[in-house]
Amino acid sequence: MMSSKMKKQPISGYGVSKVLRSRHPDFKEGDLVWGITGWEEYSVIKDPHALIKIQYTDVPLSYYTGVLGMPGLTAYAGFYEICSPKKGEHVFVSAASGAVGQLVGQFAKLAGCYVVGSAGSSEKVNLLKNKLGFDEAFNYKEEHDLDAALKRYFPAGIDIYFENVGGKMLDAVLLNMNIHGRISVCGMISQYNLENLEVEGVKNLFCLVTKRIRMEGFVVMSDYNELYPKFQELAREYLKQGKIVYVEDVVEGIENGGAALVGLFSGRNVGKQVVAVVHE
Amino acid sequence: MMSSKMKKQPISGYGVSKVLRSRHPDFKEGDLVWGITGWEEYSVIKDPHALIKIQYTDVPLSYYTGVLGMPGLTAYAGFYEICSPKKGEHVFVSAASGAVGQLVGQFAKLAGCYVVGSAGSSEKVNLLKNKLGFDEAFNYKEEHDLDAALKRYFPAGIDIYFENVGGKMLDAVLLNMNIHGRISVCGMISQYNLENLEVEGVKNLFCLVTKRIRMEGFVVMSDYNELYPKFQELAREYLKQGKIVYVEDVVEGIENGGAALVGLFSGRNVGKQVVAVVHE
Repeated sequence: MMSSKMKKQPISGYGVSKVLRSRHPDFKEGDLVWGITGWEEYSVIKDPHALIKIQYTDVPLSYYTGVLGMPGLTAYAGFYEICSPKKGEHVFVSAASGAVGQLVGQFAKLAGCYVVGSAGSSEKVNLLKNKLGFDEAFNYKEEHDLDAALKRYFPAGIDIYFENVGGKMLDAVLLNMNIHGRISVCGMISQYNLENLEVEGVKNLFCLVTKRIRMEGFVVMSDYNELYPKFQELAREYLKQGKIVYVEDVVEGIENGGAALVGLFSGRNVGKQVVAVVHE
Repeated sequence: MMSSKMKKQPISGYGVSKVLRSRHPDFKEGDLVWGITGWEEYSVIKDPHALIKIQYTDVPLSYYTGVLGMPGLTAYAGFYEICSPKKGEHVFVSAASGAVGQLVGQFAKLAGCYVVGSAGSSEKVNLLKNKLGFDEAFNYKEEHDLDAALKRYFPAGIDIYFENVGGKMLDAVLLNMNIHGRISVCGMISQYNLENLEVEGVKNLFCLVTKRIRMEGFVVMSDYNELYPKFQELAREYLKQGKIVYVEDVVEGIENGGAALVGLFSGRNVGKQVVAVVHE
């Protein structure tokens, strides 16, 4: 691998890279890897233990930043391991058209669940209903009363909530959870929003007691790393058979990466946001 | 059992009663039972399946409203089943001198943990440190910065939090939890306080993700009822051997029950609040 000799630490994130030079026994020139690298054209990776070698190149390499990478494993571990789904249960997914949400919804359908997703535009809602197989979807920006919206889509309550947003949505969900419901938390994007200097407090946590809810946070590459081989096999099989589909929003050029990142917080992207630095 | 022929539904709660009349095969005249009854001198119990017959009368009968009753089982199931304690872990208990808290602290010491409790008066803090065996205790009303207080008592962080209060304390705890910490939630008394019309929002829930915390609510008599015999045996043994002690605050006379209930919310009671309606 090669250094771009930048003085400052670059932003880092999940990416796909090709090994240009290596003295590490596990990696050789030409290997393709995915994992955390810098937002730069050339990186020196000093601690490559978190990089995973790409075995299969019969899919777009960008899939290793999503459906076959960290977000895919997040959806898989969060849904199957933390939420313990049962056939017929009612599942709600927020930020449902994102990299994680779109897969959680499809896993939930494959598990025989009823699935509703929320997203922030009618284009995304269409995507959820017409391409990703969600039973229902709604635009949360058009709902003045999230509690009422959830009651409309879940008259019998929510068994599983895959939490990606936090804040007001979590408060409304808590009111609509069923007894012994499970909430898997892998992110709270509403709380990262740079425009919100004041974090919104969650007021309905007493529902955790009255409804005996389990709520669990996780960081997939730290907590469920060992599930990757099994997950990859399943996800490849599902993709091949068309049982899951995957939607990306690709921006060309590292110079557009910053704008793409900022766009995430206003929901400009449709599907997993990818920045193509170079094409093979 | 006998009716007081009240027109209105009485307040109900956990109590100890003697069967005066019964046509139910499991209960006969003279049996002592504990479970949910009315706040009244005589009650008609139409659905006695939730009543538990008292086998042992070698302890004060009031213990079946506390250390040998629902609060005791709450401490036991919440600590052992939900928090999965390991020797040497750091445990924080809020409302620590209450019926549940005082037992959680003592169970935690018996499990080889370091335990700190919070309570609302110096009398309670003394009780925690000098009678109930907590390693440390503090008066939360004297702490302007709960986060700083927790950092003082838990320089290495909190592994287990037994949540009884909610609100600001939960927010401060979240900032001080360790990775893979566990929070068992059996109540949020700060949120029931009648003087607080506005529920306090919890702002630090993003810590659930960054610290991969599991937070779980439970209602012990619904979720862990089957553990009662095993728990009772253990708690009786611990009491007999002096391994646990138990502190009650007994008010005499049903006419003082209302004031005792209201007193809970300002923390007037020291130890488990009991109302003695009649003595055997």
